[in-house]
Amino acid sequence: MTRVAVDALGGDRAPEEVVAGALEAADAGIEPILYGPAGLDTGGLPLVETTQVIAMEEKPAEAVKSKPDSSLVVACRAVGAGDADAVVSAGNTGAMLAAAFLELRRLPGVARPAIAVVIPSRKGPSVLLDSGANADARPEHLLQFAHMGSVFAQEVLDIPEPEVRLLSIGEEPEKGNQLTLDAHALLAASDLGFAGNAESRDLLAGAADVVVCDGFTGNVALKLLEGTIKTVLDALREEIAATPRGKLGGLLIRPAARRLRSKLDPDTYGGAYLLGLRGLSVIAHGNSSRRAISNAIHLAAKGVEHDVVGRLAARMPERRTPAAV
Amino acid sequence: MTRVAVDALGGDRAPEEVVAGALEAADAGIEPILYGPAGLDTGGLPLVETTQVIAMEEKPAEAVKSKPDSSLVVACRAVGAGDADAVVSAGNTGAMLAAAFLELRRLPGVARPAIAVVIPSRKGPSVLLDSGANADARPEHLLQFAHMGSVFAQEVLDIPEPEVRLLSIGEEPEKGNQLTLDAHALLAASDLGFAGNAESRDLLAGAADVVVCDGFTGNVALKLLEGTIKTVLDALREEIAATPRGKLGGLLIRPAARRLRSKLDPDTYGGAYLLGLRGLSVIAHGNSSRRAISNAIHLAAKGVEHDVVGRLAARMPERRTPAAV
Repeated sequence: MTRVAVDALGGDRAPEEVVAGALEAADAGIEPILYGPAGLDTGGLPLVETTQVIAMEEKPAEAVKSKPDSSLVVACRAVGAGDADAVVSAGNTGAMLAAAFLELRRLPGVARPAIAVVIPSRKGPSVLLDSGANADARPEHLLQFAHMGSVFAQEVLDIPEPEVRLLSIGEEPEKGNQLTLDAHALLAASDLGFAGNAESRDLLAGAADVVVCDGFTGNVALKLLEGTIKTVLDALREEIAATPRGKLGGLLIRPAARRLRSKLDPDTYGGAYLLGLRGLSVIAHGNSSRRAISNAIHLAAKGVEHDVVGRLAARMPERRTPAAV
Repeated sequence: MTRVAVDALGGDRAPEEVVAGALEAADAGIEPILYGPAGLDTGGLPLVETTQVIAMEEKPAEAVKSKPDSSLVVACRAVGAGDADAVVSAGNTGAMLAAAFLELRRLPGVARPAIAVVIPSRKGPSVLLDSGANADARPEHLLQFAHMGSVFAQEVLDIPEPEVRLLSIGEEPEKGNQLTLDAHALLAASDLGFAGNAESRDLLAGAADVVVCDGFTGNVALKLLEGTIKTVLDALREEIAATPRGKLGGLLIRPAARRLRSKLDPDTYGGAYLLGLRGLSVIAHGNSSRRAISNAIHLAAKGVEHDVVGRLAARMPERRTPAAV
C-alpha cells in the first residue's frame, strides 16, 4: 500500500476538488492521506489535522518558516518522517519547493534537485527538466538532470531506453552558449541515450523523451509553451466568432477543439515532479481539477512503486564526489 | 532616395520571389539594388553582378571567407562602402550575420550588436532582442539591447515611449538568474521606460513594446513561439479532419483560420534586424514570400530615413568607455 500525503488546502479549487481527486485515486494499492483542518469532510480518507494554511500569493520562504503547522509543510514533513511515501500539493509552488527542500533532504550525490515536467507532445510524453528549480546551473548539473530525467522516463513513463537531448539554439554540437557547449561534451561522453541538441521549435511536436536544460531556460520554455497554446486557441476563437459563418463552423469543430485541448492538457501528467530528494514530491497546477489531482497521486504512487528515489540514488554518476551546492 | 541592397540569391524562393518583392517595394523613395548573377531578369531594377552564391546549409564563417564575391557578401559590403544604405537578405542567417559583422563594423560604444525580431503580438508589435546574435551576454549588454530596442521601436514601429521589460521567470524583481538579476538593477536605474520583468507566457499576447534578454534565451523563445503556433494549428487541423462534422466545420472556419495565420505571420515585419552596426541589415525568413521581402525592404528603408543607426550611436550610454567584446 502506497501512502500519498495530499495537501488538502493547496490550489485554487481546494479543498473540494483536492478531496474529490484523492477519493478518485484511492484504490487497493494507493492510500491518500489528507492534510488539512479539523472537521474537513474527507469522504472517509484519513485526515491529519493541521492548523495553518499557506496562500497562493505568499512569499515562499517566509511562509514556510512562519507556518510550520500548515497543511503544505506538514504534508512534506510526513514524507521526511516516513509517515508517507510521497507528497502532492496544488498549492504555492515556491512554498512547496522550499518545504520539500527543508523537510526532504537531498539524496547523497545529488548536487541540485530539479523540477521535471511532462510535456504532452504530439509524439508522446516528453520530460523537460530542469523546469525551474535552479535558475543558474553548471554543466555537471545538467548531466545529473539528464540521469534523473532518464530514470523518471523509464520508471514512470514506461520508456525503456529514453532518448535524451540538450535544449539549445541549433542541432549542431557547436551551437549554444558556454553552458550548453560544456554540457554537450559531458552528455556525449556519458552512457545515457544522448542524441544531441534539441531545438525549442520541436518541443510540442516531440523533441525527445528527455529534454535537458538549466532551470531558467526550462521555466521560460514551459511558460512560453503554455501561454502560446492558450493565446493561439483564444485568438482563433475570437476570429471564428467574428462572422456568422465562422460561428457555425465553430460549433461544428467544438468536439475537435476539445479533443485537442485535452491532448495538450498538462493535467494529464499531474504536475511538476521534484527529483533528487529523499522522497517524491509533486507540485500540481494551481487550478488543478479532481482529474489532475488524481493523476498526480497515481503518478506519484507509481514513482514510489518503481522506487524512483532509490534508482536515482544508485544512478548518480558523481555520487562519490562531495556533493556540491 | 534610399538605396537598399538586396541579395537576389538569398532564400528558398530566390531569385523569383526576391526580385518580385524588390519590384513591389520600389517607389519614389526606395531604390532596391539587386545583387546577383549576370543576366538576371530584374524587371528594370539596377543589378550589381556577383559570381558566387552561398547556399542555405553552408557553414557561415567558412562560406563568407571563401566566397567574397557572393551576392550576400557583396550586398553587405555595399553598405559598408556607402554604395547602399541598408541590406536585405533571406539567405543563410549565420552567413548574413558573419558578413554583416565583417563588412559593416560595430558602431562606436556598442559592445555587442543584437538581433531584433518583431513579434506580431495580439496587442501590437513587440520587439524581442537579442534573438540570437550573442549566446552569452553580460548585464551591461542587456542594457544596451534595451536602448537599441527602444530606438528601433520609436523610429521603425512608431511607438513614441516604448515600454521595456526584461524576460525572466517571474514578474517580481527578485525572480531570475544572476544575469537577469544584475540586468534588472541596471535597467531600473536607467532612463528607459523600464516596467520590470516580463514572463514568457505573455510573449504572444503582448508582454511589452521591447522585450530584452540574452541571445540564447531569445533564440529559444522565438523558435518555441514559431514552433508551437505551427504545431497547435497543425494538430487542430488534424483533429478537425478526423470526423465528417469536423471537416464541414473546418471549411466554414477556414477564412477565420487564415486571418489568424496572417496576423501571427512573422513576415508582417520582414525579418530580423541586426542592430548596432554602421548600417542596417535585415535577415528575412528563409522561405520569404515577395510580400515578406517587400516588407523587409520597406522597414529597412524606414530605419534609414529615421536614422536608426545615427540615433543608436548617439544613444549608447556607455559610448565613452572602451568598447568591450
